[in-house]
Amino acid sequence: MTTDQRKESWSTAEEEIMQATYRALLEYGYAGLSISRIADELGKSKAAIYHHYDTKDDLMITFLKFTVDRFEETIDTETGDEPVEDLKHAIEELLPLQRDEEQRRLQMVLVSLRSQAVTNETFREQFTQIDKQLAATIRSIVDRGIDEGTFRDIDSSRVAEHILATVNGAMYGRTTTDRHNTAAAARVSLVSYIDTELKRHS
Amino acid sequence: MTTDQRKESWSTAEEEIMQATYRALLEYGYAGLSISRIADELGKSKAAIYHHYDTKDDLMITFLKFTVDRFEETIDTETGDEPVEDLKHAIEELLPLQRDEEQRRLQMVLVSLRSQAVTNETFREQFTQIDKQLAATIRSIVDRGIDEGTFRDIDSSRVAEHILATVNGAMYGRTTTDRHNTAAAARVSLVSYIDTELKRHS
Repeated sequence: MTTDQRKESWSTAEEEIMQATYRALLEYGYAGLSISRIADELGKSKAAIYHHYDTKDDLMITFLKFTVDRFEETIDTETGDEPVEDLKHAIEELLPLQRDEEQRRLQMVLVSLRSQAVTNETFREQFTQIDKQLAATIRSIVDRGIDEGTFRDIDSSRVAEHILATVNGAMYGRTTTDRHNTAAAARVSLVSYIDTELKRHS
Repeated sequence: MTTDQRKESWSTAEEEIMQATYRALLEYGYAGLSISRIADELGKSKAAIYHHYDTKDDLMITFLKFTVDRFEETIDTETGDEPVEDLKHAIEELLPLQRDEEQRRLQMVLVSLRSQAVTNETFREQFTQIDKQLAATIRSIVDRGIDEGTFRDIDSSRVAEHILATVNGAMYGRTTTDRHNTAAAARVSLVSYIDTELKRHS
């Protein structure tokens, strides 16, 4: 995923704290996170963490950036020159039919962090930015399809929001319920929608 | 929303604790909730809460049921005999174009609670149940439309998951980002999809 945001570069010590926070969050949830538990995961003292971060809030803001970087690295929305295939590829990246364990854990962490956006402005800005970029990527593929005559002359913004809402909602559902096959069902229906409604029938 | 789950009946004291928890959650987020803060909102001592709930976890499980009851009360998916209109009505209930302040707050609380489902089995079961019921309601409307010949002979399960994912994702996005017009855009596209792809063109 291309982004204007500068990626952090992490020292070994910071990277280890981030990895420990990741594991602690998966084990205890966001509400159960504490510097003590992160220090336990790290196998070091709390002082080793406070050396880098003044407060838990500081640590969590850094952890948010760390996680978002990981998410952006996993998403490859590079486009080719076939709008239909590019759109399907973007959907596949955002909503794989099968998730490997690493993808599953990353989505668990993202859903935990994103819930903080309900009351925390910094988190909210970060997820606003992510969704804005994803919607823009999808819309630009649709616009190209319309220009080339592959897609009907539809409202590309609306279609982009529809696709983004569907992939986000399916990911959210799969991460917060035991309904494991529903994300794949939603995706198949979404792709069929692209094939039948978006494509110009000539 | 019709449901097989028995609604709790709440004593005045319990109802007041639930309302205080609701306000404290909106102010501090789930991770910032404590019995102290809920007691402050309640204007009573912590003992007044511990009289009813042994632990914060007990209180939160009860609060989950309280919030789900409120959600189910606000959703009217009673169906008529016009599948297209019934489907649009269900989508309108789940994803209003404009939310009033009470709907906005309820969704903030639901997103906060739902994030606990990532690591907490009780929360996970509850949200699994909610999504299962919503998907079944949507699917039954689509099935009726197919039987009556209003809809094409499509896979109603897939379409139901697509619609549910879109409304959940749009609600999630609107509650966790500053992108306020996107939910309406997604909904307009979803309704257009129903009109053009689902309906049999005679």
